Amino acid sequence: MRRRTEYPTALRDLIAQLRQMPGIGPRSAERIALWIVQSKGDRPEQIASALRSTRETVRPCVLCGFFATQELCDICADESRATDLLCVVEQATDILPLEKTSAFRGRYHSLGGRISPLDHVGPEDLRIKQLLDRVEKENFSEIIFALAADVEGEATTNYLVDLLKDKGLNLTRIAHGLPAGGGLESADELTLYQALSGRTKL
Amino acid sequence: MRRRTEYPTALRDLIAQLRQMPGIGPRSAERIALWIVQSKGDRPEQIASALRSTRETVRPCVLCGFFATQELCDICADESRATDLLCVVEQATDILPLEKTSAFRGRYHSLGGRISPLDHVGPEDLRIKQLLDRVEKENFSEIIFALAADVEGEATTNYLVDLLKDKGLNLTRIAHGLPAGGGLESADELTLYQALSGRTKL
Repeated sequence: MRRRTEYPTALRDLIAQLRQMPGIGPRSAERIALWIVQSKGDRPEQIASALRSTRETVRPCVLCGFFATQELCDICADESRATDLLCVVEQATDILPLEKTSAFRGRYHSLGGRISPLDHVGPEDLRIKQLLDRVEKENFSEIIFALAADVEGEATTNYLVDLLKDKGLNLTRIAHGLPAGGGLESADELTLYQALSGRTKL
Repeated sequence: MRRRTEYPTALRDLIAQLRQMPGIGPRSAERIALWIVQSKGDRPEQIASALRSTRETVRPCVLCGFFATQELCDICADESRATDLLCVVEQATDILPLEKTSAFRGRYHSLGGRISPLDHVGPEDLRIKQLLDRVEKENFSEIIFALAADVEGEATTNYLVDLLKDKGLNLTRIAHGLPAGGGLESADELTLYQALSGRTKL
Protein backbone atom coordinates (compact mmCIF):
# COMPACT_ATOMS: atom_id res chain seq x y z
CA MET A 1 0.00 0.00 0.00
CA ARG A 2 1.17 3.47 -0.81
CA ARG A 3 1.99 5.87 1.97
CA ARG A 4 -0.79 8.36 2.63
CA THR A 5 0.15 11.99 2.02
CA GLU A 6 0.00 14.05 5.19
CA TYR A 7 0.92 17.50 6.44
CA PRO A 8 4.49 17.90 7.74
CA THR A 9 4.98 16.77 11.34
CA ALA A 10 5.32 20.32 12.71
CA LEU A 11 1.94 21.22 11.22
CA ARG A 12 0.26 18.06 12.55
CA ASP A 13 1.73 18.74 15.97
CA LEU A 14 0.37 22.31 15.88
CA ILE A 15 -3.09 20.98 14.98
CA ALA A 16 -2.93 18.56 17.93
CA GLN A 17 -1.86 21.39 20.25
CA LEU A 18 -4.65 23.70 19.07
CA ARG A 19 -7.23 20.97 19.73
CA GLN A 20 -6.43 21.28 23.42
CA MET A 21 -8.15 24.67 23.47
CA PRO A 22 -11.79 24.68 24.61
CA GLY A 23 -14.37 24.56 21.82
CA ILE A 24 -11.79 23.77 19.14
CA GLY A 25 -12.49 20.54 17.24
CA PRO A 26 -10.36 18.87 14.58
CA ARG A 27 -11.74 20.98 11.70
CA SER A 28 -11.30 24.32 13.50
CA ALA A 29 -7.80 23.33 14.63
CA GLU A 30 -6.80 22.48 11.05
CA ARG A 31 -8.29 25.73 9.76
CA ILE A 32 -6.45 27.82 12.36
CA ALA A 33 -3.18 25.93 11.80
CA LEU A 34 -3.35 26.51 8.04
CA TRP A 35 -4.04 30.18 8.67
CA ILE A 36 -1.01 30.28 10.98
CA VAL A 37 1.25 28.69 8.36
CA GLN A 38 -0.03 30.82 5.49
CA SER A 39 -0.34 34.21 7.18
CA LYS A 40 1.71 36.95 5.67
CA GLY A 41 2.92 39.45 8.29
CA ASP A 42 3.46 38.52 11.93
CA ARG A 43 -0.03 38.12 13.37
CA PRO A 44 0.58 34.51 14.47
CA GLU A 45 3.79 35.53 16.24
CA GLN A 46 1.84 38.34 17.96
CA ILE A 47 -0.70 35.79 19.18
CA ALA A 48 2.08 33.58 20.56
CA SER A 49 3.56 36.62 22.33
CA ALA A 50 0.21 37.69 23.76
CA LEU A 51 -0.37 34.14 24.98
CA ARG A 52 2.99 33.97 26.73
CA SER A 53 2.83 37.45 28.23
CA THR A 54 -0.68 36.86 29.55
CA ARG A 55 0.53 33.69 31.22
CA GLU A 56 3.38 35.64 32.78
CA THR A 57 1.48 38.72 33.94
CA VAL A 58 -2.06 37.63 34.82
CA ARG A 59 -2.43 35.87 38.19
CA PRO A 60 -5.32 35.31 40.60
CA CYS A 61 -5.92 38.16 43.03
CA VAL A 62 -4.58 37.03 46.42
CA LEU A 63 -7.78 38.21 48.10
CA CYS A 64 -10.74 37.29 45.88
CA GLY A 65 -9.26 35.10 43.13
CA PHE A 66 -10.29 37.36 40.20
CA PHE A 67 -7.76 38.06 37.42
CA ALA A 68 -5.06 40.49 38.48
CA THR A 69 -1.74 41.86 37.29
CA GLN A 70 -0.88 43.31 40.71
CA GLU A 71 -1.23 41.51 44.02
CA LEU A 72 -4.80 42.83 44.25
CA CYS A 73 -7.28 42.91 41.36
CA ASP A 74 -9.01 46.12 40.24
CA ILE A 75 -12.10 45.25 42.28
CA CYS A 76 -10.31 44.59 45.58
CA ALA A 77 -8.10 47.66 45.05
CA ASP A 78 -11.09 49.92 44.38
CA GLU A 79 -11.65 51.86 47.60
CA SER A 80 -14.93 53.34 46.36
CA ARG A 81 -16.63 49.96 46.59
CA ALA A 82 -18.66 48.83 49.62
CA THR A 83 -16.55 46.88 52.11
CA ASP A 84 -19.40 45.34 54.10
CA LEU A 85 -20.89 43.19 51.30
CA LEU A 86 -19.26 40.00 50.10
CA CYS A 87 -20.49 37.93 47.17
CA VAL A 88 -19.23 34.32 47.07
CA VAL A 89 -18.97 32.71 43.62
CA GLU A 90 -17.69 29.38 42.34
CA GLN A 91 -15.30 30.64 39.69
CA ALA A 92 -13.34 33.80 38.95
CA THR A 93 -15.14 33.81 35.60
CA ASP A 94 -18.48 34.28 37.39
CA ILE A 95 -17.44 37.73 38.61
CA LEU A 96 -17.55 39.68 35.35
CA PRO A 97 -21.11 38.57 34.44
CA LEU A 98 -22.26 39.76 37.89
CA GLU A 99 -20.37 43.05 37.44
CA LYS A 100 -22.12 43.62 34.12
CA THR A 101 -25.47 43.77 35.90
CA SER A 102 -24.26 46.80 37.91
CA ALA A 103 -26.48 45.44 40.70
CA PHE A 104 -23.66 44.79 43.14
CA ARG A 105 -20.90 47.11 44.28
CA GLY A 106 -19.34 45.11 47.11
CA ARG A 107 -16.49 42.61 47.24
CA TYR A 108 -16.19 39.11 45.77
CA HIS A 109 -14.70 35.82 46.81
CA SER A 110 -14.13 33.04 44.29
CA LEU A 111 -13.99 29.52 45.72
CA GLY A 112 -12.24 28.09 42.69
CA GLY A 113 -14.94 25.42 42.27
CA ARG A 114 -17.67 23.69 44.23
CA ILE A 115 -17.83 20.61 46.43
CA SER A 116 -18.25 17.65 44.10
CA PRO A 117 -17.42 14.20 45.50
CA LEU A 118 -17.83 12.58 42.06
CA ASP A 119 -15.06 14.81 40.70
CA HIS A 120 -12.98 14.29 43.87
CA VAL A 121 -13.37 17.94 44.86
CA GLY A 122 -13.74 18.32 48.62
CA PRO A 123 -13.91 21.44 50.83
CA GLU A 124 -10.13 21.33 51.30
CA ASP A 125 -9.66 21.83 47.53
CA LEU A 126 -11.55 25.14 47.57
CA ARG A 127 -10.60 28.59 48.84
CA ILE A 128 -12.74 28.14 51.97
CA LYS A 129 -10.01 28.76 54.54
CA GLN A 130 -9.26 32.05 52.78
CA LEU A 131 -12.97 32.90 52.96
CA LEU A 132 -13.06 32.26 56.74
CA ASP A 133 -9.89 34.36 57.17
CA ARG A 134 -11.52 37.23 55.29
CA VAL A 135 -14.67 36.96 57.40
CA GLU A 136 -12.50 37.30 60.53
CA LYS A 137 -10.39 40.21 59.23
CA GLU A 138 -12.79 42.24 57.11
CA ASN A 139 -15.95 43.75 58.44
CA PHE A 140 -18.77 42.20 56.43
CA SER A 141 -22.42 42.62 57.35
CA GLU A 142 -23.83 40.37 54.60
CA ILE A 143 -22.55 37.45 52.59
CA ILE A 144 -24.40 36.72 49.34
CA PHE A 145 -24.00 33.24 47.89
CA ALA A 146 -24.11 33.31 44.09
CA LEU A 147 -23.39 29.67 43.31
CA ALA A 148 -25.01 27.54 40.64
CA ALA A 149 -28.66 26.53 41.11
CA ASP A 150 -27.84 22.82 40.94
CA VAL A 151 -27.19 20.02 43.44
CA GLU A 152 -23.49 20.72 43.87
CA GLY A 153 -23.92 24.49 44.04
CA GLU A 154 -26.64 24.06 46.68
CA ALA A 155 -24.54 21.57 48.66
CA THR A 156 -21.58 23.94 48.65
CA THR A 157 -23.77 26.86 49.73
CA ASN A 158 -25.24 24.77 52.57
CA TYR A 159 -21.77 23.68 53.67
CA LEU A 160 -20.58 27.29 53.86
CA VAL A 161 -23.75 28.46 55.62
CA ASP A 162 -23.07 25.83 58.31
CA LEU A 163 -19.56 27.20 58.80
CA LEU A 164 -20.68 30.82 58.95
CA LYS A 165 -24.08 30.73 60.62
CA ASP A 166 -22.79 31.64 64.10
CA LYS A 167 -20.72 34.66 63.03
CA GLY A 168 -23.58 37.16 63.32
CA LEU A 169 -23.72 37.85 59.56
CA ASN A 170 -26.67 38.12 57.19
CA LEU A 171 -26.34 35.11 54.89
CA THR A 172 -28.34 35.36 51.65
CA ARG A 173 -28.36 33.71 48.27
CA ILE A 174 -29.36 34.93 44.83
CA ALA A 175 -32.93 34.16 43.74
CA HIS A 176 -33.80 31.00 41.84
CA GLY A 177 -36.70 31.18 39.39
CA LEU A 178 -37.82 31.71 35.86
CA PRO A 179 -35.05 33.03 33.59
CA ALA A 180 -35.68 36.37 31.87
CA GLY A 181 -37.56 35.88 28.62
CA GLY A 182 -38.41 32.30 29.50
CA GLY A 183 -42.04 31.22 29.34
CA LEU A 184 -43.63 28.81 31.82
CA GLU A 185 -43.97 26.17 29.14
CA SER A 186 -40.20 25.98 28.65
CA ALA A 187 -39.30 25.84 32.34
CA ASP A 188 -38.67 22.52 34.06
CA GLU A 189 -40.57 21.41 37.14
CA LEU A 190 -37.84 22.29 39.64
CA THR A 191 -37.43 25.80 38.22
CA LEU A 192 -41.20 26.35 38.48
CA TYR A 193 -41.23 24.99 42.03
CA GLN A 194 -38.44 27.39 43.00
CA ALA A 195 -40.11 30.28 41.15
CA LEU A 196 -43.32 29.61 43.06
CA SER A 197 -41.78 29.13 46.49
CA GLY A 198 -39.56 32.16 45.99
CA ARG A 199 -42.44 34.41 44.91
CA THR A 200 -42.12 38.06 45.92
CA LYS A 201 -44.67 40.68 46.92
CA LEU A 202 -45.83 43.18 44.33
CA MET B 1 -20.66 57.17 36.53
CA ARG B 2 -18.64 54.42 38.05
CA ARG B 3 -15.87 52.76 36.07
CA ARG B 4 -16.91 49.43 34.56
CA THR B 5 -14.95 46.42 35.83
CA GLU B 6 -12.96 44.75 33.06
CA TYR B 7 -10.34 42.09 32.61
CA PRO B 8 -6.71 43.22 32.97
CA THR B 9 -5.24 44.78 29.80
CA ALA B 10 -3.01 41.77 29.03
CA LEU B 11 -6.04 39.50 29.04
CA ARG B 12 -8.11 41.86 26.88
CA ASP B 13 -5.20 42.10 24.44
CA LEU B 14 -4.98 38.30 24.28
CA ILE B 15 -8.72 38.09 23.53
CA ALA B 16 -8.29 40.65 20.72
CA GLN B 17 -5.35 38.68 19.31
CA LEU B 18 -7.22 35.36 19.42
CA ARG B 19 -10.14 36.92 17.51
CA GLN B 20 -7.81 37.26 14.53
CA MET B 21 -7.88 33.49 14.07
CA PRO B 22 -10.38 32.17 11.52
CA GLY B 23 -13.71 31.01 12.96
CA ILE B 24 -13.03 32.51 16.38
CA GLY B 25 -15.65 35.02 17.51
CA PRO B 26 -15.68 37.15 20.67
CA ARG B 27 -17.20 34.42 22.89
CA SER B 28 -14.77 31.70 21.75
CA ALA B 29 -11.83 34.07 22.08
CA GLU B 30 -12.83 34.91 25.66
CA ARG B 31 -13.33 31.25 26.50
CA ILE B 32 -9.92 30.28 25.11
CA ALA B 33 -8.20 33.23 26.80
CA LEU B 34 -9.69 32.31 30.19
CA TRP B 35 -8.57 28.72 29.65
CA ILE B 36 -5.07 30.01 28.84
CA VAL B 37 -4.92 32.11 32.02
CA GLN B 38 -6.35 29.41 34.26
CA SER B 39 -4.57 26.32 32.91
CA LYS B 40 -2.46 24.46 35.39
CA GLY B 41 0.60 22.88 33.74
CA ASP B 42 2.20 24.28 30.60
CA ARG B 43 -0.21 23.43 27.80
CA PRO B 44 -0.65 27.09 26.73
CA GLU B 45 3.13 27.52 26.57
CA GLN B 46 3.34 24.38 24.45
CA ILE B 47 0.78 25.82 22.05
CA ALA B 48 2.77 29.05 21.77
CA SER B 49 5.90 27.00 21.07
CA ALA B 50 4.18 24.83 18.46
CA LEU B 51 2.84 27.98 16.80
CA ARG B 52 6.26 29.60 16.61
CA SER B 53 8.10 26.47 15.50
CA THR B 54 5.54 25.78 12.77
CA ARG B 55 6.01 29.32 11.49
CA GLU B 56 9.76 28.77 11.45
CA THR B 57 9.87 25.31 9.86
CA VAL B 58 6.91 25.00 7.48
CA ARG B 59 7.33 26.76 4.12
CA PRO B 60 5.73 26.37 0.67
CA CYS B 61 7.36 23.72 -1.52
CA VAL B 62 9.42 25.59 -4.16
CA LEU B 63 7.96 23.41 -6.90
CA CYS B 64 4.24 22.89 -6.18
CA GLY B 65 3.47 25.24 -3.27
CA PHE B 66 2.28 22.51 -0.83
CA PHE B 67 3.49 22.62 2.79
CA ALA B 68 7.10 21.54 3.17
CA THR B 69 9.87 21.48 5.74
CA GLN B 70 12.56 20.76 3.13
CA GLU B 71 12.94 22.58 -0.19
CA LEU B 72 10.60 20.00 -1.75
CA CYS B 73 7.40 18.70 -0.14
CA ASP B 74 6.78 14.99 0.43
CA ILE B 75 4.74 14.74 -2.76
CA CYS B 76 7.32 16.35 -5.08
CA ALA B 77 10.11 14.35 -3.41
CA ASP B 78 8.26 11.04 -3.84
CA GLU B 79 9.88 9.33 -6.84
CA SER B 80 7.26 6.59 -6.90
CA ARG B 81 4.63 9.03 -8.15
CA ALA B 82 3.77 9.53 -11.81
CA THR B 83 5.79 12.36 -13.37
CA ASP B 84 3.65 12.84 -16.48
CA LEU B 85 0.44 13.98 -14.75
CA LEU B 86 0.04 17.45 -13.28
CA CYS B 87 -2.98 18.62 -11.30
CA VAL B 88 -3.41 22.40 -11.03
CA VAL B 89 -5.24 23.66 -7.93
CA GLU B 90 -6.02 27.11 -6.55
CA GLN B 91 -4.65 26.66 -3.06
CA ALA B 92 -2.11 24.47 -1.29
CA THR B 93 -4.97 23.46 1.02
CA ASP B 94 -6.80 21.89 -1.96
CA ILE B 95 -4.09 19.23 -2.31
CA LEU B 96 -4.77 17.11 0.78
CA PRO B 97 -8.51 16.67 0.04
CA LEU B 98 -7.57 15.43 -3.46
CA GLU B 99 -4.92 13.11 -1.99
CA LYS B 100 -7.49 11.60 0.35
CA THR B 101 -9.48 10.33 -2.63
CA SER B 102 -6.46 8.20 -3.69
CA ALA B 103 -7.68 8.82 -7.26
CA PHE B 104 -4.59 10.73 -8.36
CA ARG B 105 -0.94 9.78 -8.05
CA GLY B 106 0.73 12.46 -10.15
CA ARG B 107 2.15 15.87 -9.30
CA TYR B 108 0.45 19.07 -8.16
CA HIS B 109 0.80 22.78 -8.79
CA SER B 110 -0.84 25.32 -6.52
CA LEU B 111 -1.53 28.72 -8.08
CA GLY B 112 -1.89 30.47 -4.74
CA GLY B 113 -5.33 31.82 -5.70
CA ARG B 114 -7.45 32.51 -8.76
CA ILE B 115 -7.89 35.45 -11.09
CA SER B 116 -10.35 37.80 -9.42
CA PRO B 117 -10.44 41.41 -10.66
CA LEU B 118 -12.84 42.42 -7.86
CA ASP B 119 -10.23 41.37 -5.28
CA HIS B 120 -7.44 42.94 -7.37
CA VAL B 121 -5.90 39.52 -8.08
CA GLY B 122 -4.53 39.34 -11.63
CA PRO B 123 -2.53 36.60 -13.40
CA GLU B 124 0.75 38.23 -12.29
CA ASP B 125 -0.24 37.62 -8.63
CA LEU B 126 -0.47 33.86 -9.15
CA ARG B 127 2.20 31.18 -9.60
CA ILE B 128 1.56 31.03 -13.36
CA LYS B 129 5.12 31.74 -14.50
CA GLN B 130 6.28 28.87 -12.30
CA LEU B 131 3.63 26.65 -13.94
CA LEU B 132 4.86 27.53 -17.43
CA ASP B 133 8.46 26.88 -16.33
CA ARG B 134 7.49 23.44 -15.05
CA VAL B 135 5.64 22.64 -18.28
CA GLU B 136 8.87 23.45 -20.19
CA LYS B 137 11.20 21.51 -17.90
CA GLU B 138 9.13 18.53 -16.76
CA ASN B 139 7.67 16.03 -19.16
CA PHE B 140 3.89 16.19 -18.61
CA SER B 141 1.45 14.44 -20.90
CA GLU B 142 -1.71 15.70 -19.20
CA ILE B 143 -2.64 18.70 -17.11
CA ILE B 144 -5.79 18.37 -15.00
CA PHE B 145 -7.41 21.59 -13.82
CA ALA B 146 -9.05 21.15 -10.41
CA LEU B 147 -10.19 24.70 -9.73
CA ALA B 148 -13.46 25.78 -8.16
CA ALA B 149 -16.67 25.32 -10.17
CA ASP B 150 -17.51 29.02 -10.02
CA VAL B 151 -17.06 32.05 -12.25
CA GLU B 152 -13.56 32.90 -11.09
CA GLY B 153 -12.37 29.30 -11.07
CA GLU B 154 -13.68 28.88 -14.62
CA ALA B 155 -12.10 32.14 -15.79
CA THR B 156 -8.74 31.12 -14.35
CA THR B 157 -8.95 27.69 -15.98
CA ASN B 158 -9.82 29.27 -19.33
CA TYR B 159 -6.93 31.74 -19.01
CA LEU B 160 -4.46 28.90 -18.38
CA VAL B 161 -5.90 26.74 -21.19
CA ASP B 162 -5.27 29.65 -23.57
CA LEU B 163 -1.63 29.80 -22.45
CA LEU B 164 -1.07 26.05 -22.71
CA LYS B 165 -3.22 24.93 -25.65
CA ASP B 166 -0.36 24.89 -28.20
CA LYS B 167 2.07 22.85 -26.09
CA GLY B 168 0.82 19.45 -27.30
CA LEU B 169 -0.59 18.49 -23.88
CA ASN B 170 -3.87 16.87 -22.91
CA LEU B 171 -5.74 19.58 -20.97
CA THR B 172 -8.62 18.28 -18.83
CA ARG B 173 -10.68 19.47 -15.90
CA ILE B 174 -12.43 17.66 -13.08
CA ALA B 175 -16.13 16.87 -13.61
CA HIS B 176 -18.86 19.26 -12.49
CA GLY B 177 -22.15 17.73 -11.41
CA LEU B 178 -24.33 16.50 -8.60
CA PRO B 179 -22.42 16.16 -5.30
CA ALA B 180 -22.35 12.71 -3.71
CA GLY B 181 -25.39 12.11 -1.53
CA GLY B 182 -27.11 15.17 -2.98
CA GLY B 183 -30.63 14.75 -4.36
CA LEU B 184 -31.87 16.56 -7.43
CA GLU B 185 -34.25 18.63 -5.35
CA SER B 186 -31.39 20.20 -3.39
CA ALA B 187 -29.22 21.01 -6.41
CA ASP B 188 -29.29 24.44 -8.01
CA GLU B 189 -30.08 25.01 -11.65
CA LEU B 190 -26.48 25.46 -12.79
CA THR B 191 -25.33 22.27 -11.05
CA LEU B 192 -28.15 20.34 -12.74
CA TYR B 193 -27.28 21.89 -16.10
CA GLN B 194 -23.65 20.85 -15.68
CA ALA B 195 -24.65 17.39 -14.43
CA LEU B 196 -26.83 16.91 -17.52
CA SER B 197 -24.36 18.24 -20.06
CA GLY B 198 -21.54 16.25 -18.48
CA ARG B 199 -23.50 12.97 -18.42
CA THR B 200 -21.41 9.84 -18.91
CA LYS B 201 -22.12 6.49 -20.61
CA LEU B 202 -23.12 3.53 -18.46
